[in-house]
Amino acid sequence: MTDAATVMQHCDVLAACTDEPGSITRPFASDAMRRAHQYVREWMREAGMAVTRDNVGNLRARYEGTGTATLLLGSHLDSVRNAGRYDGPLGVMVAIAVVKRLRDAGRRLPFGLEVLAFADEEGLRFGSTYLGSRAVAGRLDGAELRRTDAGGVTMAEAIRAFGGDPEKLADDRWRGDRPLGYVEVHIEQGPVLEARGLPVGVVPAIAGQSRFEIAFTGEAGHAGTVPMDRRRDALTAAAEVVLAVEAAGATQEALVATVGRLEVEPGAANVIPGKVFFTLDVRHPDDRVRTPACEALIARTRETARRRKLAVEVRATSERPSVRCSPRLTALLKQAVAGRAPEVPSGAGHDGVYMSEITDVAMLFVRCKGGISHNPAESVTTADVGVALDVLGRFLELLARQ
Amino acid sequence: MTDAATVMQHCDVLAACTDEPGSITRPFASDAMRRAHQYVREWMREAGMAVTRDNVGNLRARYEGTGTATLLLGSHLDSVRNAGRYDGPLGVMVAIAVVKRLRDAGRRLPFGLEVLAFADEEGLRFGSTYLGSRAVAGRLDGAELRRTDAGGVTMAEAIRAFGGDPEKLADDRWRGDRPLGYVEVHIEQGPVLEARGLPVGVVPAIAGQSRFEIAFTGEAGHAGTVPMDRRRDALTAAAEVVLAVEAAGATQEALVATVGRLEVEPGAANVIPGKVFFTLDVRHPDDRVRTPACEALIARTRETARRRKLAVEVRATSERPSVRCSPRLTALLKQAVAGRAPEVPSGAGHDGVYMSEITDVAMLFVRCKGGISHNPAESVTTADVGVALDVLGRFLELLARQ
Repeated sequence: MTDAATVMQHCDVLAACTDEPGSITRPFASDAMRRAHQYVREWMREAGMAVTRDNVGNLRARYEGTGTATLLLGSHLDSVRNAGRYDGPLGVMVAIAVVKRLRDAGRRLPFGLEVLAFADEEGLRFGSTYLGSRAVAGRLDGAELRRTDAGGVTMAEAIRAFGGDPEKLADDRWRGDRPLGYVEVHIEQGPVLEARGLPVGVVPAIAGQSRFEIAFTGEAGHAGTVPMDRRRDALTAAAEVVLAVEAAGATQEALVATVGRLEVEPGAANVIPGKVFFTLDVRHPDDRVRTPACEALIARTRETARRRKLAVEVRATSERPSVRCSPRLTALLKQAVAGRAPEVPSGAGHDGVYMSEITDVAMLFVRCKGGISHNPAESVTTADVGVALDVLGRFLELLARQ
Repeated sequence: MTDAATVMQHCDVLAACTDEPGSITRPFASDAMRRAHQYVREWMREAGMAVTRDNVGNLRARYEGTGTATLLLGSHLDSVRNAGRYDGPLGVMVAIAVVKRLRDAGRRLPFGLEVLAFADEEGLRFGSTYLGSRAVAGRLDGAELRRTDAGGVTMAEAIRAFGGDPEKLADDRWRGDRPLGYVEVHIEQGPVLEARGLPVGVVPAIAGQSRFEIAFTGEAGHAGTVPMDRRRDALTAAAEVVLAVEAAGATQEALVATVGRLEVEPGAANVIPGKVFFTLDVRHPDDRVRTPACEALIARTRETARRRKLAVEVRATSERPSVRCSPRLTALLKQAVAGRAPEVPSGAGHDGVYMSEITDVAMLFVRCKGGISHNPAESVTTADVGVALDVLGRFLELLARQ
């Protein structure tokens, strides 16, 4: 079996580690995760690595080099509800496979390799993302431990039940010298590579993101009796903004702007909508593009409310600046690609967001079918995984020569 | 106390007849309706009328004239959930008050007056409207009797529990000669009279109405990773249609077009909407305006789907032609108004829709505050009710002279 075929098989095995039989749902510190760990530990050992587990529940496996420096590789093992099998696990499996190749060849690099299999990136169980990489970056606030899951279990209890000590999360912080970098392989989760007919791409940056919750309040009324010119319809106002958001997204390369949630009150066929609540999500790899785009959309929202005589509430619910990947590591990754290596900014967040606080970050995207992710239909080819494996292997050799 | 003040007081008394203490909810054949009937029967008797109840549960009260012909007056006693106190009851109370004036004056008209207090117009309990007037028009299909309410009670059982015989609904049909007409006083449920500063208006027609359910299906996707030019967003398509519906409504006098319900799937802030379901409600007093307006909007909907590469389903869920009020009776009502009597088409349906199948129909609208109805904030003034009473009284005298 080729190394790529083994990676695919391992992703299938992990897909069977689920809390919801029939679909893939592997939350933080779950029974499904416990079963996944049994497999992953074994695969790490077969690749010649020493395996430990930290308090938050990350698996950490080390393959020593001839020197003391460390390059970090990895991705996450948790999933969203009813997930695909590659978002997360693929990056961990490719990292293990690359180490195994070195081991099988009896090769040591001038630096150690540490594979991080993060305990949580998606935030399914506690609604708080990046728990694994935040612990490694020393950014997991103790206040988070009081969060509860849908069953009322606190995060502290969940960590303890999974075998960690919630009072010692600070120990999970990276303790050695600054690592040489953190490199992650991940499915693209978008259609760009597929559209260009290329197996892999390098990530110049992880997009910054702004989220808003917006509510228009007009006046509900009888759909048959209130003349059009006397209406204060919250939905027609929201429709204007939805189209403005779409148009704004089209004005700049790599800008994406989305209204994903929209709720109408009272929501009856014969009643003019009195209130509409909706979300706005804006992302771009350059904050100098995102910030003015958001300002323009919020101004447009307020102008719409004024013109239509509606009340408007705008709440900025989150803002995350963009994370620029390391130009040096990204250039090496490009060099390692035999052929064209397009730059594909990541619109989704990744563990690199927090890892960038303690080291340089680089990411390699693998083409995924239809750009679909967070869905059972998530699909990659064995051939493309083979390319990613080879690229990561060559990258390590290039880095070793520097 | 003036007659108008008595009408207001009676509406307050009926407001206390509710199945939901603290709000006004008086469904068909309910305990609340039973209590309301006790009061209304008594007020009808005080006005000199002989009261009967038919099988569906309409109260019918007759004040004999010197001849055998009959003029029908009335409205409905049931309400929507959390209703106001005037939509329906006001028309019944004004009719009773006008008869009482005749009785108190010892006056008989050349025709008898029959006040109909309909058992159901809103359709709250069984989701089927106009039960009362349909029974009188002989249009209450036996199949309706198998409908069930939220508690699983069939309409047949509800009618029997309320004291009627569901197998004898055919007996409720109007049996005498064709009546001289059916005249109803009702709150406007819209803002036209308030805007013009006038207490009452006459209704030239009850608008026809078309209802559609429309669904766009595009492709859900990650809000961060799918570029704008590769999206098939069902919500942006729906937003286009929502604005087209609003614009269409503004093109023609008295045309109203509304998207009142709109639901987004999957409805998460970070997911491009894959599916949107929405309703379309179009009304106009002239079917020759409504029908082409609907056709144009549905064509626009299909064009939007084609251009945006979405699937679209359009389902026509109901169509009700407009009902023209009797020009002769409406002219008499106008004559009875001392002052300006604007024509205000009714965008809402009324019992006249079915009564028009057995007789000529006329309606008098009373100004309501803010155009608000189906809401506890429903409000009319005693002065305006006094005007409506006087107009209806003069109308009877004018008709008597013809």
